[in-house]
Amino acid sequence: MSPKINIGIDLLGSDSDPIDLLSSTIVLCKTLDTSINFKLFGNKELEKEFNKFDFSINNHASLEFILSENEITMDEDPLLAVRRKKKSSLCIAMRSLKNKEIDALVSCGNTGAITASSIIYLDCLKNISRPALLAIIPTKKNPCAILDVGANISATSDQLVEHAILGISYKKTKGYKKPKVGILNIGTEEKKGTSKHKQAYQDLLKLSKEDTSFEFMGNIEGKEVFLGKVDILITDGFTGNIFLKTAEGLASFILDKIYNNLTKEEFLDISNVFNDLQKRLHYAQYPGALLIGVNGIVIKCHGYSSSTAFASAIKGAINFVKQNFLDSIKSNLK
Amino acid sequence: MSPKINIGIDLLGSDSDPIDLLSSTIVLCKTLDTSINFKLFGNKELEKEFNKFDFSINNHASLEFILSENEITMDEDPLLAVRRKKKSSLCIAMRSLKNKEIDALVSCGNTGAITASSIIYLDCLKNISRPALLAIIPTKKNPCAILDVGANISATSDQLVEHAILGISYKKTKGYKKPKVGILNIGTEEKKGTSKHKQAYQDLLKLSKEDTSFEFMGNIEGKEVFLGKVDILITDGFTGNIFLKTAEGLASFILDKIYNNLTKEEFLDISNVFNDLQKRLHYAQYPGALLIGVNGIVIKCHGYSSSTAFASAIKGAINFVKQNFLDSIKSNLK
Repeated sequence: MSPKINIGIDLLGSDSDPIDLLSSTIVLCKTLDTSINFKLFGNKELEKEFNKFDFSINNHASLEFILSENEITMDEDPLLAVRRKKKSSLCIAMRSLKNKEIDALVSCGNTGAITASSIIYLDCLKNISRPALLAIIPTKKNPCAILDVGANISATSDQLVEHAILGISYKKTKGYKKPKVGILNIGTEEKKGTSKHKQAYQDLLKLSKEDTSFEFMGNIEGKEVFLGKVDILITDGFTGNIFLKTAEGLASFILDKIYNNLTKEEFLDISNVFNDLQKRLHYAQYPGALLIGVNGIVIKCHGYSSSTAFASAIKGAINFVKQNFLDSIKSNLK
Repeated sequence: MSPKINIGIDLLGSDSDPIDLLSSTIVLCKTLDTSINFKLFGNKELEKEFNKFDFSINNHASLEFILSENEITMDEDPLLAVRRKKKSSLCIAMRSLKNKEIDALVSCGNTGAITASSIIYLDCLKNISRPALLAIIPTKKNPCAILDVGANISATSDQLVEHAILGISYKKTKGYKKPKVGILNIGTEEKKGTSKHKQAYQDLLKLSKEDTSFEFMGNIEGKEVFLGKVDILITDGFTGNIFLKTAEGLASFILDKIYNNLTKEEFLDISNVFNDLQKRLHYAQYPGALLIGVNGIVIKCHGYSSSTAFASAIKGAINFVKQNFLDSIKSNLK
């Protein structure tokens, strides 16, 4: 019998009701086979709720509860909170990940605290100074990996180059032979953007001449991303987060507008197109954002995640473990 | 007879073919009445083209041609180019605007050069240190004014507050009694974003207590903008530009996808909804971006503008003049 896959879930510190997250996990666990074990990190109140469930039927994924003393909330200073609250659900879960008691961690909590605790407990991968959050967006061609979407509030030119290296490694684990990399910028000319963008442009241009396993496409404007011009879009965490949330907000706006203005018959006529679009665009279908660059698999869900989004993130974490993602990325970074 | 409205058009320095811009202007001029006069700023080659047209029928808007020595291109350093090329079409046009030989200027050229020349030739309005580019986006409620969308590459906290003041003044000229202002940020908590965002948050909170003619809504995430939570969204020029172009790109992506996947019959069934959406979302329907904060009406079109977008921008400029926009904004800034 192969060893179980242990997925850690931090139930605390998000904008979602932790009881909803607990319920979603329990519903999901009943759809998964016995190779999966969930370790749920929560407080006493949640433990009581957890104990109410009947786990006598055991032909599906199993669950354990790990009690923590407190939680890191959304409005806390990330670094201070991680230093002070060593017995928070997040810090206990990160230590479990470090000690290989869990194979991956899913959290909907404070992004800054997730990033800070991952650096403290997991260490960064080789030649990487800080992790980045990687999200996937649909395009007319291949899905595009965008990073950073919010692990850090800003990025130096060196960190922008690191984001590119991480993105390339990620795409190679997905079978891309020569992924295309672009810098999200306000124009395509090489002099566009801040001094950091200009420096990163030159550094990536140079790197692409030494390392022919990726193609540097230069600066990319927001409107070109959806045409599928690049496989990897690099940006600082502030801009990337705005980019992602703007795309989500606008997609919802357009889809709602179509949905609300069609009669039932009209809607049924075009429901194939509509459902496909909704599936491709709605973040709930994507497995959260991956914290890439640290020695562990960490998935960050939206602060307020629907049960579908949360379940997608957990399934994404399971797939990363099954695919030995961490080993692949490490070997690509060598 | 009331004096003519003189609209200056810089035909040079954009990504569009200047002959196309000339043709678009001539087509447009034939649809406008004799109260409008266009002054076209171009080079010798364009002058030759201009002279080929027959202007003997004069029951429509009139046209003049003003010859310039050179042009400021897209890839030039804005400030250097404006200083060196005083006889460029852009600089001559800006001086015409300063001297009231034209009432408004439309350009598709280098944004940085437009901004720099406007500061040099027109001066900033009272208490404003730099102009900002203001664009309009559709939402579920009122259209939202977003600024800065690219006049400046960055913004201090004081400049973010200036953007808010300019946006409020703009919305008041449109009849808003108590416009709602928000800061584009990566989360709604007051501690989110960079130190500049945090300072601007505190400054606007304080200002909203002294000046009750606007409502400060705090930080706004990209996804909330399209719900219509604010009438004015403030941001630095880099982020604002990314925001706007991302929204444009995604809107095209979604609309194209629907369009290409429906049969002709299906499309006809839903064409009302589709056309309305396209009209609301496509930038060609919006009159370019307004350079607000300088003593003159300057409209910046996309570097590559369709004839529809270009004509929209020119009509937008005419409306600003007819509505005495500059006087209104100045009186609101007192």
